Amino acid sequence: MRTDIERFFSPKSIAIIGASQDLVTISGQPLKHLLSHGYKGKLYPVNPKYQDVAGVKCWPSLESLPEAPELALILVNASRVPDMLTSCGKKGVPYVIIFSSGFSEMGGAGVTAQQKLAEIAREYDIGVIGPNCQGMINAADGVFAGFGSVFGSDYKPGSVSMVSQSGGFGFSVMNLSSLDGGLPFRQMVTTGNEIGVSTLDFMDYFIRDPQTDIIGTYIEGVKDARRILDTGDKALAAGKPILMWKVGNTEQGQKAAASHTANLGGAMALYKAAFKQKGIIQVEDIQDLVDYGRALRSNKLPKGNRLAIITISGGAGILMTDEIVARGMQMAQLSATTVAKLKEFVPSFGSVGNPVDVTAAIFNDLTLINRTLQAINDDPGVDCIAMINASLQGEIAQKVAAEIIAVAAKTDKPIFISWSARDAVAPEAYGALDAARIPHYKSPVRCGRALAAVSWYAEARRRNAAQKNDKAPVISRPAAQAMLKGKTGDVAEYAAKQVLAEYGIAVTKEELAKTRDAAVAAAQKIGFPVAMKVQSSDISHKTEAKAVKLGVANAADVAAAFDDILKNAKAWKADASIDGVLVQEMVGDGTEVIIGITNDALFGPAVMFGLGGIFAEVLKDVSFRLAPITLAMAREMIEEIKGYPVLAGARGKAPADVDALADTLVKLSALAVDLKDQVAELDINPLLVMPRGLGVKAADALIRMKS
Amino acid sequence: MRTDIERFFSPKSIAIIGASQDLVTISGQPLKHLLSHGYKGKLYPVNPKYQDVAGVKCWPSLESLPEAPELALILVNASRVPDMLTSCGKKGVPYVIIFSSGFSEMGGAGVTAQQKLAEIAREYDIGVIGPNCQGMINAADGVFAGFGSVFGSDYKPGSVSMVSQSGGFGFSVMNLSSLDGGLPFRQMVTTGNEIGVSTLDFMDYFIRDPQTDIIGTYIEGVKDARRILDTGDKALAAGKPILMWKVGNTEQGQKAAASHTANLGGAMALYKAAFKQKGIIQVEDIQDLVDYGRALRSNKLPKGNRLAIITISGGAGILMTDEIVARGMQMAQLSATTVAKLKEFVPSFGSVGNPVDVTAAIFNDLTLINRTLQAINDDPGVDCIAMINASLQGEIAQKVAAEIIAVAAKTDKPIFISWSARDAVAPEAYGALDAARIPHYKSPVRCGRALAAVSWYAEARRRNAAQKNDKAPVISRPAAQAMLKGKTGDVAEYAAKQVLAEYGIAVTKEELAKTRDAAVAAAQKIGFPVAMKVQSSDISHKTEAKAVKLGVANAADVAAAFDDILKNAKAWKADASIDGVLVQEMVGDGTEVIIGITNDALFGPAVMFGLGGIFAEVLKDVSFRLAPITLAMAREMIEEIKGYPVLAGARGKAPADVDALADTLVKLSALAVDLKDQVAELDINPLLVMPRGLGVKAADALIRMKS
Repeated sequence: MRTDIERFFSPKSIAIIGASQDLVTISGQPLKHLLSHGYKGKLYPVNPKYQDVAGVKCWPSLESLPEAPELALILVNASRVPDMLTSCGKKGVPYVIIFSSGFSEMGGAGVTAQQKLAEIAREYDIGVIGPNCQGMINAADGVFAGFGSVFGSDYKPGSVSMVSQSGGFGFSVMNLSSLDGGLPFRQMVTTGNEIGVSTLDFMDYFIRDPQTDIIGTYIEGVKDARRILDTGDKALAAGKPILMWKVGNTEQGQKAAASHTANLGGAMALYKAAFKQKGIIQVEDIQDLVDYGRALRSNKLPKGNRLAIITISGGAGILMTDEIVARGMQMAQLSATTVAKLKEFVPSFGSVGNPVDVTAAIFNDLTLINRTLQAINDDPGVDCIAMINASLQGEIAQKVAAEIIAVAAKTDKPIFISWSARDAVAPEAYGALDAARIPHYKSPVRCGRALAAVSWYAEARRRNAAQKNDKAPVISRPAAQAMLKGKTGDVAEYAAKQVLAEYGIAVTKEELAKTRDAAVAAAQKIGFPVAMKVQSSDISHKTEAKAVKLGVANAADVAAAFDDILKNAKAWKADASIDGVLVQEMVGDGTEVIIGITNDALFGPAVMFGLGGIFAEVLKDVSFRLAPITLAMAREMIEEIKGYPVLAGARGKAPADVDALADTLVKLSALAVDLKDQVAELDINPLLVMPRGLGVKAADALIRMKS
Repeated sequence: MRTDIERFFSPKSIAIIGASQDLVTISGQPLKHLLSHGYKGKLYPVNPKYQDVAGVKCWPSLESLPEAPELALILVNASRVPDMLTSCGKKGVPYVIIFSSGFSEMGGAGVTAQQKLAEIAREYDIGVIGPNCQGMINAADGVFAGFGSVFGSDYKPGSVSMVSQSGGFGFSVMNLSSLDGGLPFRQMVTTGNEIGVSTLDFMDYFIRDPQTDIIGTYIEGVKDARRILDTGDKALAAGKPILMWKVGNTEQGQKAAASHTANLGGAMALYKAAFKQKGIIQVEDIQDLVDYGRALRSNKLPKGNRLAIITISGGAGILMTDEIVARGMQMAQLSATTVAKLKEFVPSFGSVGNPVDVTAAIFNDLTLINRTLQAINDDPGVDCIAMINASLQGEIAQKVAAEIIAVAAKTDKPIFISWSARDAVAPEAYGALDAARIPHYKSPVRCGRALAAVSWYAEARRRNAAQKNDKAPVISRPAAQAMLKGKTGDVAEYAAKQVLAEYGIAVTKEELAKTRDAAVAAAQKIGFPVAMKVQSSDISHKTEAKAVKLGVANAADVAAAFDDILKNAKAWKADASIDGVLVQEMVGDGTEVIIGITNDALFGPAVMFGLGGIFAEVLKDVSFRLAPITLAMAREMIEEIKGYPVLAGARGKAPADVDALADTLVKLSALAVDLKDQVAELDINPLLVMPRGLGVKAADALIRMKS
């Protein structure tokens, strides 16, 4: 696979295969755009019908070119694409954009045709972009290799590089972000059906590209999803934030999974887990991309999540407070020193609390701004500052901007501005802030959201730095692999728990009884009362089959329960293969949680945690991480669900043994990795979490094999 | 209280009390703005220092004016405001805007000073706006009575009228919405501290105003909150949607309420309940206001929530689908007839599913747009249509707009457009859509959100129309009022349940036993096993006091439990006044829910519903309605919580008796109204909901009295 992607973005020569003399058509546009934006390399239109196109010499075939172009654009009909791609391969073209549609997006024959293209690309080691895409813009070098109305605009180059799986919409995003949003792009590429260079390949390249500071991505889904972890790690290390727009969140229908974990672990849940693990910032609209991108351009990250707000008009401070608190930030508690300092000059009808209201008194004394900003900035309890300037415009706006810029130049703390004047009435002030890379927003809401996004990213960086030497334990258990060897379908409780025990996960005391007498003997050994359950890989829903009895109190009851369970199991499924009846200790007083594994086709093994019963199933209040996880990550998983207070000791209950729970999640994650070739899904439901210090116990378990 | 608010917005004469010759200052600006915007009435600057201001004759005092002006603006220092207001009263001025600050927003003496103003206003029947506000703009009549930079702009009058409690930010919203957002305003007023004409007074006026179609509101909180129901009703009847921006959602600290209902029923929960009950559309940013306002200007409401999407570029359809499904709309299922029709002309590489992808083939055949729109519009399974036009610009954009406008003119179904071209490159197309009142948005996300908001509003209107003859039952129970008479603090379970029973709410069989022997006798009468609980208005948390025993199985155990409960109760609170021990039937097999009443100082009585235990307390998965409620509203409350599937029969459980639960909620709401002068809070926790047909039973209850 090619990795010299800088050649793709800045090719010294470009062939345009199927170039049309009608410069309005799709096959005519690329040459027109390359010429009009002043492309500096060699251009080779290829079309046997023409002598020249738009004044450029036209070549009859790729073979006839005097050199191998560094990039070829294929604009011919789908049926002719394979031949053209082969020609490129033979000529030694390193990168080819295939614009043509008519491949996997059509299904059927299109899929086969696309496979053929992939084979050709592999054979000749061509980096293919597309098919069914809209090309690329490198605004920095004036390479406009594509079609569409947005190619007609000029773009001031910036430091955002973006890859999009959607062609038309992707370029709309660039156009609106760069020209209306004030977030200039460096490079933009659309990948279409991605038979060659993929979204993640481009992201990896943007991380390496010294001129790219911020990475934008628009995806419907990636084939090499687990690679997001690796790409995310590299981006964190390079200090290049990723803004990820993942679409297609509407789940289509129900999956036929055996476990709750797999049912809840749809693609979006795993994407979100990966984003969380690697500090990838999710965006959900063009405005988010613009707002967060502008925030990140400042290159200042807050050291904590405590915000101080300064406003010249009370009302808007409430709005921003709502927004940042809802998104996990805190309002800073100003120190007594700061408050005393503020009291020296903030008018008495203002406020020295947080938000600090300096009031319209700034009209009479502009130094108020500098002094207030300075006092707040000096407070060690403040990590970042937002200033709300209402609709200030004209000359006073310019002066206020200058005061802010002066303070910002001397501090590492991010300063964000909410400023509601229209662009038309405060162009100098806004221009000065832009030049100083001080983010500003028309509404306190947008300003608060951008702040929260940057704060979240900064926290992810701190967390990853703090945990960078943590290692997820690796546990190899050939015995467990052997136990599962050859098994297919569902593995029932007794055998599943033996696998868990291999990884040090605590399970209930239990015995599998094949006869009534054996059941009684087992119960006497374990101690009364006991739980009794049918064991059959054909019966996953034991309770619904009435094949579970709890609190069986004596030998006679055990004997009766044994018969009853077998009778009910047969009634539920006449042809069920039954291993026996499991006789098990009754575990009292634990909090029921569910933990599990889903081994996703794209993401590989992931672990889930949630409270038991309807919390997971109905309310979907669960957390996911891609395995393996460390102890710190396990704790984050536990603490991030809404129901966490239940474990921490809500409603007068004793706090549960969260340490043991976290330890068990880590072991489960190690199991998930060790058995990833065998196990498709696994639920421990319930895992009983005892009061602090008393551990956990797996009370039931189910494994579904990969095949 | 004055209601002739049209005089306020269109006064024939205005006095400016404290007018300054320095037109840049706050007291100089109003005259400047009135003059520059061509105010047509008489202007009377009042200031004993000047002969004239800005060329207008200046008067020494209000008394000296030749007539009573219809509006006076007071711009003097706080200390002089009472005298000026009194002068206005004596002169017979109907409306006064007090701009001056220094009243309740300062606390202390400011509060007293403000009360004085309110008294003067009442004495002379003056409609006071403010104090501490920024004035008013009536764009339709050119009345610019206020100060601030946004008063310098010209506004094309529209049909949106807005009232804002924030001055500075409110006018920013008008400025950005009208001039950048393309949502022209008719009137805008800021109310500041609201001692006279309130937010709701203005909303009521906007409903009456024939020129206002859409009502905007920005509030931190209203004093007459329950009036929102009445105002909402009138707005629904008049077909004038209300866009409400409620800020201040960050809850400050914990309330010291006895009941879960009151703890969960913070201001925001009750505002949201009121909005839901009356179809008031909540907005959370300027962009929401603009987007939803533009959507509502079309004056077409969908008859259902089924959307069909037509796109010329696949990707963006996914985005809109995500958005509308997440907000409660559905993707329409196109009929076989429609699909057959579409197949006649949609290209084979497009899609005739929903979203319908007509592809870039429209470039070759523009009639595709008309034909596709027409076919979709004819489908009875489609309630509204969204069309996604990517970045089409220039001439083709104009033609596409014309095609859309032609279809839209002949249908009642709303047609929304997502169109990502910048304003600068498709001005004619956008202008034509605006003139035809066809809403268009730069991103599919914003378009989807606006559609969902309109669909939600349309549904609220349908619901209110369908239920308009439903009456909430009125239950008057003098006996219950007598039971509670003279009680203060908490009323414990036994007595509380007797009150519930008066309203027909089913309670457990139980007896209050004062002696051990009485407890045994009661248990024998009720039947074993029984539950036993201490009864004391000093012990609200009986379980935590270990003063509850469940499943007590025989007479000896009852006797022992009696002693134990009293001992533990004393240990928990030595000086607790104990009424006895409640002996109660054990109710099996019900689903635990919690229902209750909070009697809010501003909203009056409201009822709550949620699942029991941590669902309500930790996850806050509850619903509220302001009482009284009808049976249909009770059903909505039950169905809207996330945990509803638990009652509907999730996880193999029998469906619960939701009919009985809804009936009980209605009775509780009637109780809330009947006892609203006595009861501050009430929890039934748990209410056990039996399987369908078997009713409900209140297993525990607590009342907190108002005093």
